[in-house]
Amino acid sequence: MSYTASSALAIFGAPAQRDPRVVRRVIRAGGWTGHTSGLVPQYVQGNVVILPSAHADDFLRYCQRNPKPCPVLAVSEPGDHRLPVLGTDLDIRSDVPRYRVYRAGRLVEERADITELWRSDLVAFVLGCSFSFEQALIDAGIRLRHVELGCNVAMYRTNIETVFAGPFHGPLVVSMRPLSASAAIRAIGITSRFAAVHGAPVHLGDPALIGIADLSVPDYGDSVEVHADEIPVFWACGVTPSLAIERARLELCITHVPGKMLVTDLSNAALASS
Amino acid sequence: MSYTASSALAIFGAPAQRDPRVVRRVIRAGGWTGHTSGLVPQYVQGNVVILPSAHADDFLRYCQRNPKPCPVLAVSEPGDHRLPVLGTDLDIRSDVPRYRVYRAGRLVEERADITELWRSDLVAFVLGCSFSFEQALIDAGIRLRHVELGCNVAMYRTNIETVFAGPFHGPLVVSMRPLSASAAIRAIGITSRFAAVHGAPVHLGDPALIGIADLSVPDYGDSVEVHADEIPVFWACGVTPSLAIERARLELCITHVPGKMLVTDLSNAALASS
Repeated sequence: MSYTASSALAIFGAPAQRDPRVVRRVIRAGGWTGHTSGLVPQYVQGNVVILPSAHADDFLRYCQRNPKPCPVLAVSEPGDHRLPVLGTDLDIRSDVPRYRVYRAGRLVEERADITELWRSDLVAFVLGCSFSFEQALIDAGIRLRHVELGCNVAMYRTNIETVFAGPFHGPLVVSMRPLSASAAIRAIGITSRFAAVHGAPVHLGDPALIGIADLSVPDYGDSVEVHADEIPVFWACGVTPSLAIERARLELCITHVPGKMLVTDLSNAALASS
Repeated sequence: MSYTASSALAIFGAPAQRDPRVVRRVIRAGGWTGHTSGLVPQYVQGNVVILPSAHADDFLRYCQRNPKPCPVLAVSEPGDHRLPVLGTDLDIRSDVPRYRVYRAGRLVEERADITELWRSDLVAFVLGCSFSFEQALIDAGIRLRHVELGCNVAMYRTNIETVFAGPFHGPLVVSMRPLSASAAIRAIGITSRFAAVHGAPVHLGDPALIGIADLSVPDYGDSVEVHADEIPVFWACGVTPSLAIERARLELCITHVPGKMLVTDLSNAALASS
């Protein structure tokens, strides 16, 4: 964590001054393959899913039916590696620090560039991620334990099924942040305004009501303590579409490596509804 | 409850069609001294506090320091019985169904009109009340148990002290509504937009954290059950300023009888921030 932060400081300068276009240019040149959490704090980062166009319509319908876990920020034209709405120079083949390549539902390799794998039928989806609303919470003075501990947020599979579309289906996955009641109330008000990045929580309080047996054993990420005067608050999580894609066992699918996201030119503040 | 509703139907017609100016005119003429909950569903109702001007500045500062329990909708000029911002024809001496008159902090009488008691130094305050946000919750499809049971909302004194101003001080009083987690999350999002009528909740979950020993024994109103899959959600309550006024033991103070509120021409929807 500190290694990453100090490397980032050497390469990119002070966080508040960083230009997302410069950050993408460094990533494009292979100069950064690390995590992107906190890398450009005021700008939106996205989850990336790249699919053959034969499955793109089904996946877009899956996202439309499950907007909280799958908030679509942008979709490319088939075969087009650009996403100008997220950055005029953006090239989805090279601007993610590290990619995962799945074939027939199996992870076959990780790589820093997918230009060689690009095809005229590939469609790129960029989905909102919780970094944006976490920044809004931190800016509002709400302390997030996993951020303060420098660990990953705790994530859990729930007993809530997403609405399927074509081959895409699976359980809703949630991230959990322990908050005092007053912080939880403020956090709900704030994240309600960020529909493009998971929006308001999907649950709070008793984890058993959504099929979570033990909060201390997350399915993904790191466990954090919930203090006696705190309530666990659960938001829909971007791991949900990853699970749905795995289960769909597509001929080819390319995603980002978790935590190594696409940096865009959209400001987090611009995502908030009024 | 049904008696009141059927009387109201005979006098005022169907709720959705009612004109707040007509309702006030009937009240002014002594034709309605009952409760006003649900009487003109789309319009704002207010808590009324009338004080000698010698104490008005202190009371306004008390409200300013405690905006959640004491959201000020309007303040009259000293001696002026009009509040044109709430209704061009509004007369605060006659337009409340029933008044309480306190002298030296003691309730000395209830009456339907205070024109005879009016003085050139009296100042009228109208404070927002939860009827407005309850209507917004109901309109959003959120079920409120006390409304469905036709009873009063459960209210509790907390161990949270309000910020004093002059002689005004006392505990924060809260109202409690049991909600499922998903309804609680939506209710927080909705009431966050209604700062003029208590705004977002002040607490949720464990009642002991705000000094409430037993939810089944409210200090005011009626107890309602909290089901196993529900969370108690607590909003700041207009009883808070009433307690502060009692404790101040003013020479003269006039309020509405609880539940018999001032009907205004403001629409509830207009109170919502965007």
